[in-house]
Amino acid sequence: MTDNHFMSIALKLAEKALGSVAPNPAVGCVIVKNGVIVGEGYTGIGGRPHAEVVALQNAKNSTSGAIMYVTLEPCCHFGVTEPCTAEIIRAGIKRVVIAAIDPDKRVLGRGIEVLKEAGIEVKQGVMQEDAEKLNIGFFITKELRRPFIACKIATTLDGKIATFTGDSKWITSENTRNWVHELRAKYDAIMVGSNTLINDNPLLTCRLPGLENRSPIRLVIDSQEKLKEEHNVAKTADKVITWVITNKEVEKKIKHINYLIVNSNDTGKVCLKDMASKLVSEIGVTRLLVEGGGVLITELLKCNLIDRLIICRSGKILGNNAIPFVGNLKIHSINSCYQFKKAEIIEFDEDVVEVWDVASTYLNERNKER
Amino acid sequence: MTDNHFMSIALKLAEKALGSVAPNPAVGCVIVKNGVIVGEGYTGIGGRPHAEVVALQNAKNSTSGAIMYVTLEPCCHFGVTEPCTAEIIRAGIKRVVIAAIDPDKRVLGRGIEVLKEAGIEVKQGVMQEDAEKLNIGFFITKELRRPFIACKIATTLDGKIATFTGDSKWITSENTRNWVHELRAKYDAIMVGSNTLINDNPLLTCRLPGLENRSPIRLVIDSQEKLKEEHNVAKTADKVITWVITNKEVEKKIKHINYLIVNSNDTGKVCLKDMASKLVSEIGVTRLLVEGGGVLITELLKCNLIDRLIICRSGKILGNNAIPFVGNLKIHSINSCYQFKKAEIIEFDEDVVEVWDVASTYLNERNKER
Repeated sequence: MTDNHFMSIALKLAEKALGSVAPNPAVGCVIVKNGVIVGEGYTGIGGRPHAEVVALQNAKNSTSGAIMYVTLEPCCHFGVTEPCTAEIIRAGIKRVVIAAIDPDKRVLGRGIEVLKEAGIEVKQGVMQEDAEKLNIGFFITKELRRPFIACKIATTLDGKIATFTGDSKWITSENTRNWVHELRAKYDAIMVGSNTLINDNPLLTCRLPGLENRSPIRLVIDSQEKLKEEHNVAKTADKVITWVITNKEVEKKIKHINYLIVNSNDTGKVCLKDMASKLVSEIGVTRLLVEGGGVLITELLKCNLIDRLIICRSGKILGNNAIPFVGNLKIHSINSCYQFKKAEIIEFDEDVVEVWDVASTYLNERNKER
Repeated sequence: MTDNHFMSIALKLAEKALGSVAPNPAVGCVIVKNGVIVGEGYTGIGGRPHAEVVALQNAKNSTSGAIMYVTLEPCCHFGVTEPCTAEIIRAGIKRVVIAAIDPDKRVLGRGIEVLKEAGIEVKQGVMQEDAEKLNIGFFITKELRRPFIACKIATTLDGKIATFTGDSKWITSENTRNWVHELRAKYDAIMVGSNTLINDNPLLTCRLPGLENRSPIRLVIDSQEKLKEEHNVAKTADKVITWVITNKEVEKKIKHINYLIVNSNDTGKVCLKDMASKLVSEIGVTRLLVEGGGVLITELLKCNLIDRLIICRSGKILGNNAIPFVGNLKIHSINSCYQFKKAEIIEFDEDVVEVWDVASTYLNERNKER
């Protein structure tokens, strides 16, 4: 079996942790002895325990002379717990295969050095791109001080999200909507603008069997105190962490709701760049899923704050007077359009889900510099 | 080898004839003796010779006791040539496997009867649905007296076909545009509205190596005599058959251009239903590819004259003030939208081609009635 084989298993394990470990990275780890997997682990809820520790415990007495496959460089600094490097050395691991380097300034290659100094053979770079993509939220957070931002849009063939009267139930099929619930579980936070809050009165939770406790925290941009106690989001705020983001002092605070005050932009609205920065510094969000509406998506686009579009497209046409997922833009020529790159196409019975990443992504730029 | 195996080869042969046989059907035929293919054929340009005759000639002296696979019921009426049934009987074919029944009132099962009366074993219905789909243009023409109408749309993620200033070069990639040239070869005619004619000044031909002589006839809806001698379509009208469709008497006729006068609708414009009917009765079009613009597509949609949408989608966003592929529609609720069913998704490097068929197609309705 190749290093890639075991690393791909470690990556699958890491994926299970996405959405439940912020502000920490989602890491997967596999321990192999004599060609057989003897231990597996992934990052625990909230980021502890680390994947390496889980895998070592899982492997019990079989760690001496074994190989460890880990999707991110093991930590070497004392934090809440002892560094993973110390645990790996103590367990007698003879070889460590690492996908990506930890961008945390306290690690950043030091983890590898510590292991090598202890006489352990280290190979870094196996499936690195996959590992960096998986942890894109963590990488962007560390280096750009804002979360990875994906927008999920349920839209028609002609790019509309509701009729001109506001009817939007439902654009996509039940299968596709169920898939969105799965998707939510992989994000740290879900955000909507206040129009969507008022028009749709959504719950914004994972409602698939087995995923009920995987609901991300909920964020509502609401600078005009449109959120009332009777809205679904407010009624369930004792069960799912909920934040209102505003640029004004809030007069009537609602029980169980948290409030994040951010700067205003030139037009007196919530400054989305300041908001993105404070989502990291104040709440620790690394992966944000924006679920509309069109006004919020348009403003994020203008601020170059969209990393990914997840377009759930149904075979409907509503016409140009219906409500669009993106508003007016000052684009005179095709060459100056907003450009996204196709990442994935997923077919459902009735709909097609198109995943498009912004053409110039942080990771692309970073890898070019290497 | 099963009947389906040989019929699928016959269907592949039939596909080669699409776009060059109107107003006739595209038929494929395979002759098998002792399990080996001894003859192949498909409908000739303009509809003659028939696939059966080509395959029989191709098989030379090996037809006695052989099996014939043919995608459409052989004809039994004397037309320009002797009926195929007579040729089949004379060749000593012992078994004929047929996919679809010929909807032509002069055949419609009579071809099968004639073969049976001659002692030939006949099996009908093998891959019937595929054969009917392939010849959808012929079936619709025979039974609804209008062509099969597909609309090809090069559009952005938000359903736009040009910036608000009119720039549309290019929405999709070169690969996708080349694929459209291949697509054109499978249609009898290409149509644009006069706005597209003026804005884009298109050639509307197949310009791929090897397909130059497969250009469909060109149709321009132009009731205000916008087409001038200097337009590309007019300049090449001596090489590719070109029709102007109008509801008014034409004052200044252009050399080599044909004119089709149709009725006006309630708003004084070209009546698209009358046009569709006359495309069959006057020109013999069975498969029509509409390539825009938005005004024409919107009117076709309102008249329920779109059978298929071929959406070439790129990862661009132009904003809601850009030019849409469909104009305003009076749709109040999601339930009353125009609904299409996903037929095929084709990924290109940069773009995705989405093929959507109208939810209630002629063939679906017809098959329900059986």
